[in-house]
Amino acid sequence: EVSFDPKEHQHLRYNPLRDTWVLVSAHRMKRPWAGQVEKPPEEHTPRYDPRNPLCPGNTRANGEVNSDYDSPFLFENDFPALQPDAPDPDSDQHPLFQSKAARGVCKVMCFHPWSDVTLSLMKKQEVVKVIDKWAELVEELGTTYLWVQIFENKGAMMGCSNPHPHCQVWASNFLPNEPALSDRCQRAYYQKHGEPLLLQYAKQEAEKKERVVVETSDWLAVVPYWATWPYQTLLLPRRHVLRISDLTTEEREGLADIMKRLLTKYDNLFEISFPYSMGWHGAPTGPHLNKDNSHWQLHAHYYPPLLRSATVKKFMVGYEMLAQEQRDLTPEQAAENLQNLPEEHYKTREN
Amino acid sequence: EVSFDPKEHQHLRYNPLRDTWVLVSAHRMKRPWAGQVEKPPEEHTPRYDPRNPLCPGNTRANGEVNSDYDSPFLFENDFPALQPDAPDPDSDQHPLFQSKAARGVCKVMCFHPWSDVTLSLMKKQEVVKVIDKWAELVEELGTTYLWVQIFENKGAMMGCSNPHPHCQVWASNFLPNEPALSDRCQRAYYQKHGEPLLLQYAKQEAEKKERVVVETSDWLAVVPYWATWPYQTLLLPRRHVLRISDLTTEEREGLADIMKRLLTKYDNLFEISFPYSMGWHGAPTGPHLNKDNSHWQLHAHYYPPLLRSATVKKFMVGYEMLAQEQRDLTPEQAAENLQNLPEEHYKTREN
Ligand SMILES: O=P(O)(O)O[C@H]1O[C@H](CO)[C@@H](O)[C@H](O)[C@H]1O
Ligand SMILES: O=P(O)(O)O[C@H]1O[C@H](CO)[C@@H](O)[C@H](O)[C@H]1O
Repeated sequence: EVSFDPKEHQHLRYNPLRDTWVLVSAHRMKRPWAGQVEKPPEEHTPRYDPRNPLCPGNTRANGEVNSDYDSPFLFENDFPALQPDAPDPDSDQHPLFQSKAARGVCKVMCFHPWSDVTLSLMKKQEVVKVIDKWAELVEELGTTYLWVQIFENKGAMMGCSNPHPHCQVWASNFLPNEPALSDRCQRAYYQKHGEPLLLQYAKQEAEKKERVVVETSDWLAVVPYWATWPYQTLLLPRRHVLRISDLTTEEREGLADIMKRLLTKYDNLFEISFPYSMGWHGAPTGPHLNKDNSHWQLHAHYYPPLLRSATVKKFMVGYEMLAQEQRDLTPEQAAENLQNLPEEHYKTREN
Repeated sequence: EVSFDPKEHQHLRYNPLRDTWVLVSAHRMKRPWAGQVEKPPEEHTPRYDPRNPLCPGNTRANGEVNSDYDSPFLFENDFPALQPDAPDPDSDQHPLFQSKAARGVCKVMCFHPWSDVTLSLMKKQEVVKVIDKWAELVEELGTTYLWVQIFENKGAMMGCSNPHPHCQVWASNFLPNEPALSDRCQRAYYQKHGEPLLLQYAKQEAEKKERVVVETSDWLAVVPYWATWPYQTLLLPRRHVLRISDLTTEEREGLADIMKRLLTKYDNLFEISFPYSMGWHGAPTGPHLNKDNSHWQLHAHYYPPLLRSATVKKFMVGYEMLAQEQRDLTPEQAAENLQNLPEEHYKTREN
């Protein structure tokens, strides 16, 4: 009888936030990679580029001129996927041809006036300003919209078309698929166990320690037990918090601290500006502001594409798209690799 | 009052096979693209390469020698994500740390002895042989395994590490997420409407015509009403068929014909060997062979990554990963673009 070793024996793990399973086949890391390699990220972005529409004082595609900003700068996306005034689609009543109105706004937020920094390299107080702005946006847009999605696509590999540090905010009058699923899962858990799913999860992980990447007195960043992307992490407060706008001043400071530390480890992993898509999930807003959302716990997901090196990513393709996501190293191995990295950024480290 | 125009006004469409919605924002095609461009696919693959482990007579990573095959050639994946004998994971009973055993096999199937052909360029009778082999595999592996996933990753952009025409077959003792979801949706529709979802859908599309890309007396290829990838298609029989192994000789001939025509249009779209991931979904097997699966209808999904040209793909990133999939042209526009293309392959066309 061979005894079970998660690093050698494929198995399934359950994702309680999505009610899905991931196939963990860590022995696959042994296979050689002869496939596509990516261009490593550009490491020499100029601090100011007169042709970059996101820099202070520059003119954007629609002719608007950016202010000479020195803290987070917000503007309307020039090519928004969501607009506030789209008319209702003609409703065909056939159950296989259903459409629905979608209304919303899309904003862009520059983190910093300089193009050559990232959140990991910004000062802690500068990151706090970003968090304050996120909180403000959720508050403001949340009065009108049911869902406010804050997300950052970082790096050309993640479809980001501008190296200037920025994120996007898309607010909508509908609850998108992913938060709708997460809402159902968190609600069901709460009804069954009388405790928010992610509050219980944070407690367990804080005790077990093996998947914790960085922690502070208020926050925890872990490679979740059910991670699909190789170096996926979940960032969450220890206290029960519904929305980013509910964070105290102290918790915002702690968040800036843990974000800087997590992102520094990410950058140090392959000694590049680490690409990822990330975003915040909190309790829905708009009409939900008056409803009981105790089952919700605020959290951020980080989904980085890289697997083996700065240039070899994990392809989520055929089997993943048609059947089920599959990962090539265990979440514990990923956490260990991140844990072992220094907390000083490779760009500022003395040689 | 502005009247609704799907090409100008964003809206949501319902995917009845996944119980999710897609955000259609076709006006986004107007935005300029300054982001990452892909390497165009290699157009000059040698017919035979002595170092390519998939060519006839060559030696693979594990020392095995390929036969001198002249029709579809099958072998075990040298780095399988699923193995038949993995032990059971230690069961932690906590609902947030659930794991399960996963067992299965992974096979690779070369379509043709030559590296410089694709299904679109192969002779119809050669494609029929591929289909016969698929049917055989579902029959054989289906006696043991609950799910037999046939899929093809085509092109380096889709993580395919070898240009030789081939697909993979991963069979498992569990029903993966995607077919599990599709099973639930098809079952619910059948219970409510007394007719298989995709049979009704095929009838509707055959009548409406606007999303049909190619058709034969037995088959239909459409850009589904709920497509997420720009040029996604759904290939399905008109008759009620549960599994690929149930297809008649005539239906296999028809399938070879429609596959060649669809894939030729794909190649003609940007005049490159068009990248995609595709796969077959049919009624589950193993213990399900004795159950009623009348709600199922056999079909194939094609998911191509390209959006604007041979080198600009659609990035399914931040908003898509965290919130909801979004597309930049309507399914009807995509269908029209494909409809307007010639059925003769650009490589064999006379100048
Ligand atoms: O074909 P390969 O090299 O086994 O692997 C490819 O397809 C697999 C199944 O979709 C993915 O898990 C891999 O990420 C991808 O590179
Ligand atoms: O940042 P952009 O250029 O608006 O666009 C990027 O993020 C969007 C939201 O995730 C995606 O829909 C696009 O495919 C991607 O290129």
